[in-house]
Amino acid sequence: MYSRLFGAALPFCAELIFDNAHIIGTAPLIMGRLVMKFGGTSVANIERIKNVALHVKREVDAGHDVAVVVSAMSGKTNELVGWAAEASPLHDAREYDAIVASGEQVTSGLLAIALQALGIQARSWQGWQIPIQTSDAHASARITGIDGSEIIKRFKERKEVAVIAGFQGIHEATGRIATLGRGGSDTSAVAIAAAIHADRCDIYTDVDGVYTTDPRVVPKAKRLAKVAFEEMLEMASQGAKVLQVRSVELGMVHNVRIFVRSSFDKPEDINPHANQPPGTLICSEEEIMESQVVTGIAFSKDEAQISVRQIEDKPGVAAAIFGPLSEGNINVDMIVQNVSQDGTTDLTFTVPASDYERAKDIIVKSKAKIGYTRLDTATDVAKVSVIGIGMRSHAGVAAQAFAALAERNVNIRAITTSEIKFSLLIDAAYTELAVRTLHTLYGLDQA
Amino acid sequence: MYSRLFGAALPFCAELIFDNAHIIGTAPLIMGRLVMKFGGTSVANIERIKNVALHVKREVDAGHDVAVVVSAMSGKTNELVGWAAEASPLHDAREYDAIVASGEQVTSGLLAIALQALGIQARSWQGWQIPIQTSDAHASARITGIDGSEIIKRFKERKEVAVIAGFQGIHEATGRIATLGRGGSDTSAVAIAAAIHADRCDIYTDVDGVYTTDPRVVPKAKRLAKVAFEEMLEMASQGAKVLQVRSVELGMVHNVRIFVRSSFDKPEDINPHANQPPGTLICSEEEIMESQVVTGIAFSKDEAQISVRQIEDKPGVAAAIFGPLSEGNINVDMIVQNVSQDGTTDLTFTVPASDYERAKDIIVKSKAKIGYTRLDTATDVAKVSVIGIGMRSHAGVAAQAFAALAERNVNIRAITTSEIKFSLLIDAAYTELAVRTLHTLYGLDQA
Repeated sequence: MYSRLFGAALPFCAELIFDNAHIIGTAPLIMGRLVMKFGGTSVANIERIKNVALHVKREVDAGHDVAVVVSAMSGKTNELVGWAAEASPLHDAREYDAIVASGEQVTSGLLAIALQALGIQARSWQGWQIPIQTSDAHASARITGIDGSEIIKRFKERKEVAVIAGFQGIHEATGRIATLGRGGSDTSAVAIAAAIHADRCDIYTDVDGVYTTDPRVVPKAKRLAKVAFEEMLEMASQGAKVLQVRSVELGMVHNVRIFVRSSFDKPEDINPHANQPPGTLICSEEEIMESQVVTGIAFSKDEAQISVRQIEDKPGVAAAIFGPLSEGNINVDMIVQNVSQDGTTDLTFTVPASDYERAKDIIVKSKAKIGYTRLDTATDVAKVSVIGIGMRSHAGVAAQAFAALAERNVNIRAITTSEIKFSLLIDAAYTELAVRTLHTLYGLDQA
Repeated sequence: MYSRLFGAALPFCAELIFDNAHIIGTAPLIMGRLVMKFGGTSVANIERIKNVALHVKREVDAGHDVAVVVSAMSGKTNELVGWAAEASPLHDAREYDAIVASGEQVTSGLLAIALQALGIQARSWQGWQIPIQTSDAHASARITGIDGSEIIKRFKERKEVAVIAGFQGIHEATGRIATLGRGGSDTSAVAIAAAIHADRCDIYTDVDGVYTTDPRVVPKAKRLAKVAFEEMLEMASQGAKVLQVRSVELGMVHNVRIFVRSSFDKPEDINPHANQPPGTLICSEEEIMESQVVTGIAFSKDEAQISVRQIEDKPGVAAAIFGPLSEGNINVDMIVQNVSQDGTTDLTFTVPASDYERAKDIIVKSKAKIGYTRLDTATDVAKVSVIGIGMRSHAGVAAQAFAALAERNVNIRAITTSEIKFSLLIDAAYTELAVRTLHTLYGLDQA
């Protein structure tokens, strides 16, 4: 995950003009500019779309300029993807994109109609109409630039709501439709928020915010009022599936305040003038006055461990291992290498469970080149991560965890750390126990 | 129907460069250029789309340059139209267009994939990508121009099949998607054939050609090998529902040979090198060596008759009647006015049965202005039309009909004639009898 997340450049930055000097803290927006994003379940049928229109109306009535970003009606993208696969299992990604982008096109038109029926000026925008420019990596394209000028002009001239098809853009050199990959509408929303200088990007989801950990595992988990971008990035990439990682990256780079909130709240129950509706604000560190040492605990059972034993400790060995894995398109997550003894060392890494067999194959085939004596692997492992920007200034945070887990007889297989996070690889059977223990340890349990 | 059909200008003509000097008669195309159009039932599911791909492959293998025009999968457009109506019964036609155009977008991508799977170079084209320029009459736009240069370039450079989403284009001044109205894919196909200078435009339908009359009424009806554009225009507008009228108009103006053929024929059974596969060629009169006096009999039961009695025979009376009807968007079909007696005259016209009540209302409300004494109306009437370019040079064709129908005791309520057609308004109960009588009279029965 890391390699993909941090390894790639952020071509977006260079293209967008942004200006978020007018961020206005936690106070309600007074005549501000807002992006509202609704996912597939929020627009699953016409009744739900009309409900979304009421949410939008509320914000328009409060005086805001609004751009809405919509996903396809739930199930629609799967249907389209299924058809493409049925037409040919190996298919042209450019045609796949033309097919699947139609889902958001339909929703954008329907929501525009529903808004107009409420007496609100609105029009739909397809990615190619704005345009939202992308790379040519069809089916997993990156946004390279957005021209927000026409949308802003229409805000000013006639308070027209822009209803934007998410998940898609256009590769302008070829004029072909390109999609951003699954969950891409979150990224569309944040990128548009940056392009039109929005004060906030509201992501309406089926959860009412970001929690200290998964409430299904720890019923005492608390909803966080605010999370720093860096923390959310770790949480998202560590398995908290609220937001697409890429959208948080973009939010951080362009300082777009992202507000995660529930789409199940009734529009009529929400007062846009109230200080802050229920949800979690993802924002810059500076906006979080008093941060906890630990913000949240993320975990993932979808892990497999591969340990390469007694490799020669010389330059190029790590490259001999991870080069072939990268070529095989395998996302390596944790990497742990200890200081060598007697000129040899052990190297442990984890991969998604679904890539385990392929990764193992690659390492076995590269044995001569790598030069190891033994391979130890395990698929029944889990990764638990403790995240918090407060760690930067607090020593001994990880040590507390080691002690508490030892007390519960949880064996730690491997440890990695970063500035604002540490991750522990443990036996999968202990996942819930470990998460609950750490959640209590760091004072995250709800009162 | 006539008023709409012939009253409007054909803005298309001015915009397109066309060159059909290389028309090659009834001989099979040798390395020619072909448009193939498939309707909704032909692309109803992936299996059917793969079957379409085989049809296309056959023509590509025969050496032709091919552009394919596809409709939405059957039922899809109705679903989308239903959603738009559910979102708001009165909706913005521009949003309606964005929504419904997605149906053809999906099919074009799926067919491109299916073709690629057969090893054929292919790519999908949305209306806005080509672009197919249209007027801004959203939901019933007219094509104003097509730039076929890129498609032709790709024919020459790499024999790439163009898979084009039918029914849609773009109004370039606003950048919005516009659709052509129901059946618009036929029009797309013929317009594209003109723009890329195709040798023929094959329309694959659920019938295997154009018949002398409806075979359900006259089992002895014959498939016509060739029909002149003018005749087809009369047949189409008289109720033979094989082709959208507008597509025949375009074919006539740009001399695009249209071949109506069955999509149920198995691709493997067709030899593209054979002289002519089963179907009907709609072409210029010159290409029809020996024409029958009468080509076909069309009829329509969807008629209502309104007779305005004893109106003053002075200038402006017809305008007083038809002005308000036109403003009410009612398509008037037959109009019969006799030479006046005693300074007054009777005027009879017909309208589609569905418009009858509204039309009657309008005439009643305009009574003072028109100045008539009585209104006679009838809804149980039918129109039977006898069509044939041979009528131009044969006298007495209509007289034969009057005699034959009189013999059968079929009363004729009204008669209108044109150069290549005459229409009779009769009691609906006699429709089948009249059609069969005339079909036999003019020697159209199958041997």
